[in-house]
Amino acid sequence: MDLNADLGEGFGTWRLGDDEALLDLITSANVACGFHAGDAPTIRRVCATAAQRGVAIGAQVGYRDLAGFGRRAIAYEFAELRDEVLYQLGALNAFCRAYRTGVRYLKPHGALYHAAAGEEMPAAAIVAAVDDFDRDLPLLCPPGSVLAQLAQGAGMRVVAEGFADRNYLPNGRLVPRTSADALVTDLQEVANRAVRMATERAVIAVDGSTIPCVVESICLHGDSPGAVAAAKLVRAALIDAGVTPTAFS
Amino acid sequence: MDLNADLGEGFGTWRLGDDEALLDLITSANVACGFHAGDAPTIRRVCATAAQRGVAIGAQVGYRDLAGFGRRAIAYEFAELRDEVLYQLGALNAFCRAYRTGVRYLKPHGALYHAAAGEEMPAAAIVAAVDDFDRDLPLLCPPGSVLAQLAQGAGMRVVAEGFADRNYLPNGRLVPRTSADALVTDLQEVANRAVRMATERAVIAVDGSTIPCVVESICLHGDSPGAVAAAKLVRAALIDAGVTPTAFS
Amino acid sequence: MDLNADLGEGFGTWRLGDDEALLDLITSANVACGFHAGDAPTIRRVCATAAQRGVAIGAQVGYRDLAGFGRRAIAYEFAELRDEVLYQLGALNAFCRAYRTGVRYLKPHGALYHAAAGEEMPAAAIVAAVDDFDRDLPLLCPPGSVLAQLAQGAGMRVVAEGFADRNYLPNGRLVPRTSADALVTDLQEVANRAVRMATERAVIAVDGSTIPCVVESICLHGDSPGAVAAAKLVRAALIDAGVTPTAFS
Amino acid sequence: MDLNADLGEGFGTWRLGDDEALLDLITSANVACGFHAGDAPTIRRVCATAAQRGVAIGAQVGYRDLAGFGRRAIAYEFAELRDEVLYQLGALNAFCRAYRTGVRYLKPHGALYHAAAGEEMPAAAIVAAVDDFDRDLPLLCPPGSVLAQLAQGAGMRVVAEGFADRNYLPNGRLVPRTSADALVTDLQEVANRAVRMATERAVIAVDGSTIPCVVESICLHGDSPGAVAAAKLVRAALIDAGVTPTAFS
Repeated sequence: MDLNADLGEGFGTWRLGDDEALLDLITSANVACGFHAGDAPTIRRVCATAAQRGVAIGAQVGYRDLAGFGRRAIAYEFAELRDEVLYQLGALNAFCRAYRTGVRYLKPHGALYHAAAGEEMPAAAIVAAVDDFDRDLPLLCPPGSVLAQLAQGAGMRVVAEGFADRNYLPNGRLVPRTSADALVTDLQEVANRAVRMATERAVIAVDGSTIPCVVESICLHGDSPGAVAAAKLVRAALIDAGVTPTAFS
Repeated sequence: MDLNADLGEGFGTWRLGDDEALLDLITSANVACGFHAGDAPTIRRVCATAAQRGVAIGAQVGYRDLAGFGRRAIAYEFAELRDEVLYQLGALNAFCRAYRTGVRYLKPHGALYHAAAGEEMPAAAIVAAVDDFDRDLPLLCPPGSVLAQLAQGAGMRVVAEGFADRNYLPNGRLVPRTSADALVTDLQEVANRAVRMATERAVIAVDGSTIPCVVESICLHGDSPGAVAAAKLVRAALIDAGVTPTAFS
Repeated sequence: MDLNADLGEGFGTWRLGDDEALLDLITSANVACGFHAGDAPTIRRVCATAAQRGVAIGAQVGYRDLAGFGRRAIAYEFAELRDEVLYQLGALNAFCRAYRTGVRYLKPHGALYHAAAGEEMPAAAIVAAVDDFDRDLPLLCPPGSVLAQLAQGAGMRVVAEGFADRNYLPNGRLVPRTSADALVTDLQEVANRAVRMATERAVIAVDGSTIPCVVESICLHGDSPGAVAAAKLVRAALIDAGVTPTAFS
Repeated sequence: MDLNADLGEGFGTWRLGDDEALLDLITSANVACGFHAGDAPTIRRVCATAAQRGVAIGAQVGYRDLAGFGRRAIAYEFAELRDEVLYQLGALNAFCRAYRTGVRYLKPHGALYHAAAGEEMPAAAIVAAVDDFDRDLPLLCPPGSVLAQLAQGAGMRVVAEGFADRNYLPNGRLVPRTSADALVTDLQEVANRAVRMATERAVIAVDGSTIPCVVESICLHGDSPGAVAAAKLVRAALIDAGVTPTAFS
């Protein structure tokens, strides 16, 4: 089982999250590429440490929106979006090169993540950018999403991810963030869910039913106050259960 | 002899220069990488056409300053500058990849061009970025500049460039832009100077003396009103003189 | 009848439209405030000339999106949008002050114009910003739009504008830009329509029927190639018809 | 004695310093205006609280450089700088208006602070912007600086500020930040120095000599980890010494 988290999400003088600590716990780092967050020195810092510790580096591509942190839907045209995704892939890859590695996967951020999960145009734009850059690059995304379908249709590798700290509906989708029970806040319960995903390929939905949850990676949130503590607990629980966290790439 | 010009210097809805026409005349395109100018769709457009017509693509890296078009000196620290240059190299390279080519050289833009020509720190930052990205990438810069010296000292290839539309001092340096006679405005004279650089490896300085001018590339300015006419005249004059414009890379 | 046009829509080295020429023809200048276009020196240049020639200065507020020129829908939250509109109003007003005048009206730009015309949230955000800044500021917007309704409901002055170079549907709405017959391209016809709006308060719809068009201002597009020629023709035709172009504010 | 601190220096999702706590301790808030830091919702938040608590709002104007937080020298031209300062003054003032107050003073930030303290051009640009905006606006700056001289020469009010947590040279200037003893780190000592500035109009220089220090305001640094604790101590010590912190404006 792979553990992924968002890193490098500061900008200039501003920092967000504890990249240094998380890079000891995760196996795949979704590195912000400069459009929603992440300036060049921050990208280097994360890439240097990730490369040194054997953490896989993925491109966390986002909308060009520092003020909105890439969380606002923007009505891009197809070509603009494809090209901005390609730009970000290349920019990050230069830092990977400097540490004798490469971008190992792509994961969209924020509003782009949501748009590509549910709409054809943004999903197609991402697939086109990956096609331009490197067709062998896996896409990390929700199982069954529009992005997953388009990428698979284009013969690309898709890596499904689950969320140990999010509640699931009986139909396998996430409980929307607007609901009161969207988040699992008890850290031990979060760890238990991660273990169940890894060992039983299942999750207990919000109605108590056990539903399948076949994922290759678990997303840990990096910017919440207890992020490092949660990551530590999840990692330890997985190891206790005989699951070694390993990058999928 | 190579002919280079700055291209892709629009941003969003704003255009600058006639990229399409110049790509029929030059052999090396200095493509703006997004920091002083050049958004992703513009970069793609230039790269697509350049690749199709066999024009070499170079990274025209600049300071992060859209409002100032990269023409204002900015007191970067070494690591910031190195990392922003590396970022731009990678971003442009992703578009080159899409057209089965790669970044073929680097040429700094505006205030960075001047800083790297005369000061150790910015020159060293560029050399460090090239070292991280691809040690074999040639640097296009003024002969004898600090950047040329540092790059050569690091074992990198330096390509010297001359300016057919700028006057030279007897010591081989350019007449500063602040002087009234900085520019050669007569287009036929510009073409003559290009031919002399190519065939005699010399230029007539502002005092009338003939001085050596050993360059592998001639820079044509792309954003002035008569840029395309000047480029046509220079190209035709070179061919008339038996010099075939060819990319140095 | 007032004549308004978008001005100051360059940024840094990039220019758009011929502000200087248009300021001799229009009576109200919609000045870009720096978010979708318009840097500080450009704003000053337009304000200085407008003030000197007695052209009213309006705030052409837009989304924070230089790369998209404010033409892409962005999913702002209410408070963000209200505050960014207020910010732009204040910034422009400082330049007006410098020339002993003030912002005389507000007109939203691009995607914000469309959003505020049809949706409650963006319209309410603009109304709230105007309420914070100066309740007496008129809003220039399409008659019957959501923005017009909310502003009137809040006791603010609304100035309706018409488009002489756009075709109208029989229901009084504009033919969408996606339709082939969205634009009126014959300049003489554009001028005729302006005169009919001013003298008969009517327009001939796309089906040939004459419909009411009660507007206080006619919008002239400033950034198309023939913009100045069209503006000249419209202005001359109005004067010939006995209508003196006068700012509404 | 006035107590000033830099506030509103976050951007989008990123926060810096504890504005809320500092607004209970200081009497003048230097509010970032969006160029080096400070988005519109942040500006509103600070202005709302400052207005409610009777803290004077000043414009902390800076270079257009989010990535460098306004700390990098940028070679602006006079007109660009004047216009960007004016733009920021107006933007902030719109939020002050919303809370029935106004910008009460200007204090330059970071590299602009240093440039205007020592060089004529940036100082003159600030003075010109203030002249355009409101000649009665006081400038908060180091006593004897070029900015102070030019502003006084133009008949403007200058408010001198001192730094309780910085060491002074015997000549009255600050020990440069590059020196090991630039900062006073003992919080009690910082408070003592503030009291001496307020009651004896003096400070003990780094060589032990007592030198005059005639200031109307003391700058408290807002973004260091112990900023709030230091501000509390300084405020309490002043009150103990019979000095009531009061805005100068």
